[in-house]
Amino acid sequence: MRIFLTREGSKRRKDTVNKRLIAIILRNNQVISLEKVKIGVFKCGNIGASPIFELLLDELAERKDIKVRTLTTGSKMGVEDIEEALPKIFEFNPDLIIFVSPNPAIPGPAKVREILSNKGVPSVVISDSVAKRIKNILEEQGLGYIIIMGDPMIGARREFLDPIEMAIFNSNIIKVLAITGVLRILHQEIDRLIAVLKEELTVTLPRLVVDTDNIRDNSDFQNPYAKAKAMAAYEMTKRVAEIDQRACFVEKEKDKYVPLVACAHELAQAAARLAEEAREIEKYADTLARKPHSKSGKPLTKTKLMLPPTVDEEIYRKWLKTSRL
Amino acid sequence: MRIFLTREGSKRRKDTVNKRLIAIILRNNQVISLEKVKIGVFKCGNIGASPIFELLLDELAERKDIKVRTLTTGSKMGVEDIEEALPKIFEFNPDLIIFVSPNPAIPGPAKVREILSNKGVPSVVISDSVAKRIKNILEEQGLGYIIIMGDPMIGARREFLDPIEMAIFNSNIIKVLAITGVLRILHQEIDRLIAVLKEELTVTLPRLVVDTDNIRDNSDFQNPYAKAKAMAAYEMTKRVAEIDQRACFVEKEKDKYVPLVACAHELAQAAARLAEEAREIEKYADTLARKPHSKSGKPLTKTKLMLPPTVDEEIYRKWLKTSRL
Amino acid sequence: MRIFLTREGSKRRKDTVNKRLIAIILRNNQVISLEKVKIGVFKCGNIGASPIFELLLDELAERKDIKVRTLTTGSKMGVEDIEEALPKIFEFNPDLIIFVSPNPAIPGPAKVREILSNKGVPSVVISDSVAKRIKNILEEQGLGYIIIMGDPMIGARREFLDPIEMAIFNSNIIKVLAITGVLRILHQEIDRLIAVLKEELTVTLPRLVVDTDNIRDNSDFQNPYAKAKAMAAYEMTKRVAEIDQRACFVEKEKDKYVPLVACAHELAQAAARLAEEAREIEKYADTLARKPHSKSGKPLTKTKLMLPPTVDEEIYRKWLKTSRL
Amino acid sequence: MRIFLTREGSKRRKDTVNKRLIAIILRNNQVISLEKVKIGVFKCGNIGASPIFELLLDELAERKDIKVRTLTTGSKMGVEDIEEALPKIFEFNPDLIIFVSPNPAIPGPAKVREILSNKGVPSVVISDSVAKRIKNILEEQGLGYIIIMGDPMIGARREFLDPIEMAIFNSNIIKVLAITGVLRILHQEIDRLIAVLKEELTVTLPRLVVDTDNIRDNSDFQNPYAKAKAMAAYEMTKRVAEIDQRACFVEKEKDKYVPLVACAHELAQAAARLAEEAREIEKYADTLARKPHSKSGKPLTKTKLMLPPTVDEEIYRKWLKTSRL
Amino acid sequence: MRIFLTREGSKRRKDTVNKRLIAIILRNNQVISLEKVKIGVFKCGNIGASPIFELLLDELAERKDIKVRTLTTGSKMGVEDIEEALPKIFEFNPDLIIFVSPNPAIPGPAKVREILSNKGVPSVVISDSVAKRIKNILEEQGLGYIIIMGDPMIGARREFLDPIEMAIFNSNIIKVLAITGVLRILHQEIDRLIAVLKEELTVTLPRLVVDTDNIRDNSDFQNPYAKAKAMAAYEMTKRVAEIDQRACFVEKEKDKYVPLVACAHELAQAAARLAEEAREIEKYADTLARKPHSKSGKPLTKTKLMLPPTVDEEIYRKWLKTSRL
Amino acid sequence: MRIFLTREGSKRRKDTVNKRLIAIILRNNQVISLEKVKIGVFKCGNIGASPIFELLLDELAERKDIKVRTLTTGSKMGVEDIEEALPKIFEFNPDLIIFVSPNPAIPGPAKVREILSNKGVPSVVISDSVAKRIKNILEEQGLGYIIIMGDPMIGARREFLDPIEMAIFNSNIIKVLAITGVLRILHQEIDRLIAVLKEELTVTLPRLVVDTDNIRDNSDFQNPYAKAKAMAAYEMTKRVAEIDQRACFVEKEKDKYVPLVACAHELAQAAARLAEEAREIEKYADTLARKPHSKSGKPLTKTKLMLPPTVDEEIYRKWLKTSRL
Repeated sequence: MRIFLTREGSKRRKDTVNKRLIAIILRNNQVISLEKVKIGVFKCGNIGASPIFELLLDELAERKDIKVRTLTTGSKMGVEDIEEALPKIFEFNPDLIIFVSPNPAIPGPAKVREILSNKGVPSVVISDSVAKRIKNILEEQGLGYIIIMGDPMIGARREFLDPIEMAIFNSNIIKVLAITGVLRILHQEIDRLIAVLKEELTVTLPRLVVDTDNIRDNSDFQNPYAKAKAMAAYEMTKRVAEIDQRACFVEKEKDKYVPLVACAHELAQAAARLAEEAREIEKYADTLARKPHSKSGKPLTKTKLMLPPTVDEEIYRKWLKTSRL
Repeated sequence: MRIFLTREGSKRRKDTVNKRLIAIILRNNQVISLEKVKIGVFKCGNIGASPIFELLLDELAERKDIKVRTLTTGSKMGVEDIEEALPKIFEFNPDLIIFVSPNPAIPGPAKVREILSNKGVPSVVISDSVAKRIKNILEEQGLGYIIIMGDPMIGARREFLDPIEMAIFNSNIIKVLAITGVLRILHQEIDRLIAVLKEELTVTLPRLVVDTDNIRDNSDFQNPYAKAKAMAAYEMTKRVAEIDQRACFVEKEKDKYVPLVACAHELAQAAARLAEEAREIEKYADTLARKPHSKSGKPLTKTKLMLPPTVDEEIYRKWLKTSRL
Repeated sequence: MRIFLTREGSKRRKDTVNKRLIAIILRNNQVISLEKVKIGVFKCGNIGASPIFELLLDELAERKDIKVRTLTTGSKMGVEDIEEALPKIFEFNPDLIIFVSPNPAIPGPAKVREILSNKGVPSVVISDSVAKRIKNILEEQGLGYIIIMGDPMIGARREFLDPIEMAIFNSNIIKVLAITGVLRILHQEIDRLIAVLKEELTVTLPRLVVDTDNIRDNSDFQNPYAKAKAMAAYEMTKRVAEIDQRACFVEKEKDKYVPLVACAHELAQAAARLAEEAREIEKYADTLARKPHSKSGKPLTKTKLMLPPTVDEEIYRKWLKTSRL
Repeated sequence: MRIFLTREGSKRRKDTVNKRLIAIILRNNQVISLEKVKIGVFKCGNIGASPIFELLLDELAERKDIKVRTLTTGSKMGVEDIEEALPKIFEFNPDLIIFVSPNPAIPGPAKVREILSNKGVPSVVISDSVAKRIKNILEEQGLGYIIIMGDPMIGARREFLDPIEMAIFNSNIIKVLAITGVLRILHQEIDRLIAVLKEELTVTLPRLVVDTDNIRDNSDFQNPYAKAKAMAAYEMTKRVAEIDQRACFVEKEKDKYVPLVACAHELAQAAARLAEEAREIEKYADTLARKPHSKSGKPLTKTKLMLPPTVDEEIYRKWLKTSRL
Repeated sequence: MRIFLTREGSKRRKDTVNKRLIAIILRNNQVISLEKVKIGVFKCGNIGASPIFELLLDELAERKDIKVRTLTTGSKMGVEDIEEALPKIFEFNPDLIIFVSPNPAIPGPAKVREILSNKGVPSVVISDSVAKRIKNILEEQGLGYIIIMGDPMIGARREFLDPIEMAIFNSNIIKVLAITGVLRILHQEIDRLIAVLKEELTVTLPRLVVDTDNIRDNSDFQNPYAKAKAMAAYEMTKRVAEIDQRACFVEKEKDKYVPLVACAHELAQAAARLAEEAREIEKYADTLARKPHSKSGKPLTKTKLMLPPTVDEEIYRKWLKTSRL
Repeated sequence: MRIFLTREGSKRRKDTVNKRLIAIILRNNQVISLEKVKIGVFKCGNIGASPIFELLLDELAERKDIKVRTLTTGSKMGVEDIEEALPKIFEFNPDLIIFVSPNPAIPGPAKVREILSNKGVPSVVISDSVAKRIKNILEEQGLGYIIIMGDPMIGARREFLDPIEMAIFNSNIIKVLAITGVLRILHQEIDRLIAVLKEELTVTLPRLVVDTDNIRDNSDFQNPYAKAKAMAAYEMTKRVAEIDQRACFVEKEKDKYVPLVACAHELAQAAARLAEEAREIEKYADTLARKPHSKSGKPLTKTKLMLPPTVDEEIYRKWLKTSRL
């Protein structure tokens, strides 16, 4: 279920032995030597996962193995914005490109996909539920993707949305995505790619649709009720998406759409509270999982608050193994 | 209390009449013609106001009068990061540069300040309480500043902080900054600069230290208890800053600093809840102020949810007047 | 959008003048004289609106104009249960029959519909979202219907559901249906039928699908945020329905469906809390609408708690008017 | 403390061996053969335990060993209502009759008691605290009883109570009765009777007054603070009963009784919240007890959410033993 | 309903004109001249109203017209404690004595009553519900009284009560007494006595039993739901009293009384929360009444937070009038 | 870090053997024989720890080894108040004096310190953060001290503070001090002195500044998140102190200080809630520590609610050992 990037083997290894450089050969046979994995992030428009995305990779700002450069066009997603801004990201010679955007089917983001597909740098699209419709196209374009079903559109109606309401909405969505474990899936998937790039293994780009089932089957929650509450919170943000889509694109009268966007944002707030409640349950039993990055980028893990984290060898091995397929 | 940029008058006006272009002459006598105000945002490291900063200027993504380009180095603030990344922002020919960073006194951000100061593009530093110590230097460098006293450092200890905890902390801080009105002050101050740039008036860069008094004396709250709760929430995030500073830079033993960072983040969570409570009070009386941007960038305002927003002429006139000094 | 029952005019009136009796002629030209409107309620299986349905019509137990008899087969919905129990309801000679049941398409409830359709007593089916699929059939059968989209299926899995969990779930759903105004729509619609029967007017059976739009467009909330929260709560119970349907009918493995039913019930609990919050807002402003029944059955209305209710002439006139079409 | 029903022994057993039928001989020496235990439920008026009573016995609607028929007169409790409706219940040939009603001392319910006492079908009265006064009479009449001290009268004042307020009150009371374990006691007591009837043992009708002590001494709570909160919630609903009695029957002036009924309903709401809190505690430790019915009607039990339930042999043996006395 | 203290008239007045001294003649014809009203407070044991009692009279510590001296024996109420400590209070020559104690019928407090009755200084007993039984005796002894029905006994069982639990219980009870307005009644009644003493009018000692009706009929709440919640909170503390009485004096087994005291304290906590909710309602509408003391001791009053308080002439006149009877 | 009181040895011992009396020789060589330890408490003004201070020593009112007499001047702290009231405390011949007061540097409390220092009875000053400035003077005066950093000044502004607001503020502060463990430190320190006095050992007076670190390093919390929340609550009350100081002593305009005192009291309320949350966590795991006093005054300890307390030998030995230095 993943695309493969071919690579050369023996010759490159010498380089790395001598210089402690990492080298990788891309599909187009280009060889890149790297001391650190360089990650280019391009954002246009905004989804809940955008604002803090690159911080997820290096929350302590102490990681030695990556270099991150992010470029955004703010809330705008026009073709001309993309054409002006996107090229700069390639000037950083990224080993990996992450493209974060809502609705990647519309012209601006479509342009981004087209360019990324042509450039040949391993690229991952992170987007919202609307993106699910173009999964096939993404695969054809050789792009990885992480589609977050519960990352909802905002209630973008002028009678309702102002900068404060926008910030609060994002605050609530970030909290839900964080606590439910969606952001965990996100950073671990990118961490996996980084690990694979560092180990000079075949890059298998992610093809993930993050739905409630992922929380159910693959989360850090120890308490089953905490997990159930987190799942419920995620279901709520999924509903927010549907309501806001309707309020923004279907309803034409103010008296119809204003209550709908208000309803959607109340739902987002309630979802954030419920997610918070889920996390509190884990605190109450001192079983809250924490998975910080080590300086070398290796994944750490811990639960009891007063004990130190240790390297999570299991997940690291799993990452490398999936890439050896 | 503001620095003045000299400008030429009559000649420029003709240009704008003919071409509907905006022109501005900077301190170095350089004349720039602009169709839209181009805003370059440079972020290194992260404060609570960073993640959603540029979205504040165009929450509906429909604004025709500005173009925003943001460049960040992720959580890293090293001098080499700055030297590599910052120059790109000038390639967009920005009319205004916003630099968002914690602690602008340390080498990396200091480098940014130095470069910005030399380039002569009107620049505003947005930073946290630590920046207060270098206010004088900022003024000498000809840089505007908005120092947010209640935008606290995160609990950056590896035993505690992982990507999820980081995201939740940012979620909580964003909520406090939004509801207390700090983000309102922030976007209005930039909106003022944009208005002044569009009207070809003298740019008076902001010199603001945003403390609890600003919430007390200048907020949108109608209910005095809502305001009191918001002020209390802001006092709490100010305390978070102090506790995290100590936990990260003073305490050396795990048994000492882990409880402190945990304490600080609980405080941040409680602050977010209290802020939310403040906002609910305004909802309960349907007196919640909303101040969206119009397509032309003009400030709108409204309170009752089911009524439409109108242009806030008063604040717009105030903006232009302050620039005519 | 309503079915019409033909009626005779002049002859009947004499009777009523003399004896203060109400008479009505049904589709089959049968004439019934009645002192009180006799309402037969038949329930099989359970939906959120079932347990307290008949109490809605006479909450103070002081109403002189109706007589209610309810018959249920408990949680069972088998054909033989129906065949044994349903006939008894006709022994009470009801003027109106209300049939409350989940999923009226399955054999047992289908049998009920068939019998009701044949008997010719004005009958209304109250059911959940699944019923929406057979709207056409209901109309063909001459049955009225009120389909409550947010009255969700319970998490009927033996690993999860016990009598206590069942009762709590119903408690939560009742609260949401009550506060959102769904139960208001329900009792007013039946009150309308009673009024029409008493006034010897043409009975126009309801054909309602109660969705979030009904709360938006037609609720007692004075505060728009209260309404938005109520709408959000209703959206949540709609989601509960979808999740429980999947958990009960699609997922086969315990590890898959147990988290889903737990999630659904947490969602129901959160919905009840949010609905409660909505109602509190109205209390906070002393604008909570109350619409008790008078002894004569006339609809009363009031808002300020310490003031007495008055007859709601407007809605009463509206009821009679809709029946004159 | 229980009344005994005499029975014949040997002869009946043969029948059951051959036909897998259950036979029971009542006080009047009538012998009934039964395939399923037929339970007739008669309700007049409403108490908190009424609306979902019969659902408690078969929450999954999969139980093969019972057949339930419920008949109610809605909120009315007049003698004529009883005389018209009650006889129908006997047409189902019930093996056991449950009569649920507030205040069984007033004429209507008294009539029910009289009829039940004469008919000789084992009958249990479920009622509220007012019933405690006629315990002796109930015993003399050969009726079992479960008197729920914390199932309070509603605030039945027209200035306050409308259908919505009524539904919410019931929602709150159902939640308290469920979580405190009162509904557990209720269904287990009826389940015991069913078991005894199936096993052809002597039916010992319950004589229970369910007060806070029962929660203290005999509940499913693992956490003592959860139990204390549940007890407190129950004490609150007991107080609701006292306040509403006074508001409805003693106070004559609107200005006196309206605040009292409002107070009582606020107390009920607070009780429901506190009960919910108690249940959450058990969720937080994953020790929440669940006791679903198996298809055969055997009592099941479980605690950890993700583990399956097992047959609760202990309670079943206890049930049969108490009946052998 | 009040006892009268006789007084002399003309002679005393001269003194006061000249010296601005206040003089009062007690029942025993003793004449006291006073510059300030001297209030002696004697406490033995503790009730919820004790800890902050004297602070209620002078919350800003700026009042010029009174002098307060308090003497307590801690939690002990033995006869010898009283005999040793009480005499000291007379050394301050108090014009008014307030005796605060639980259960004034037991030997220690009975001794206090006896001594106070003999001394002839106007004295008021403030006590809990148990005191209601000796109302007649208090009146015979010429003592005023304020009996607070909702000031409950603590859960004084060694398995449960430690200093922390004790402090928290008192915190909760103080909050309920404050918010419900019970402490308002208390301080206004003493303020009335002070006013009367200053004006040299006849002292009519209070004879008050503070029950829920007082909150209903005479509170500062503007919102009727806030009042209803406050009444409910008070009903809860009344129930706490009953449960703790039973737990401490009736139940003998640990397994019986420990859950009861825990239940009582949970009830107290829930009552405090509900009271807080009531007060929040008034804040939400900015209608919270505040009644501070002026420097001269005159009662002030205000509602809107940002407006200043004004002298409450109405209540002051009422106070003096009641004393002229 | 503690002052030493010299003592005589052999002679005194005989007395105690014969009469079971405790004797202690003070610095001035005065020998006191005592059956019970007599504790004189003098309070002037009020801090959060004042109202329930003496109750902390004998929460069950069953302790046989101490006698407590408390004298207060209400909220007043004038020199004349002190001079009139304080001498009485010596009439009880106390073995230990506790002086509780805000700001012991101002004239009234300074007078108290002076007198206590001269009298030579072992004395401990309990005060708030302002006292920290005179630590050296306290030591020079031979007084012990417990300075509670998080015991904040009240918002003493007439536009805001009335008796009810005052009582609520104290309620909130008492709750925070109790739950965070500050009151535990307080009573244990006095219990230690009592134990030492009873055992005729050298009295080492406490020199404690109770800050957040004490909660971190020395609390009864089992759950680290509960402790973090408690610490956060304490940080909040520390902030209350700073805000109220400014509002009462620095700001001169009503529009400036009223929002500040309101803010401070909202912070206090939020702190109380957060502290309560911390305590609930311990209840949820049934790990809440309770440390009641035995009748003999020996410290007891327990955690699981349904188990009995046992003597805490460890802390008792520690107490005696610290005094043998």
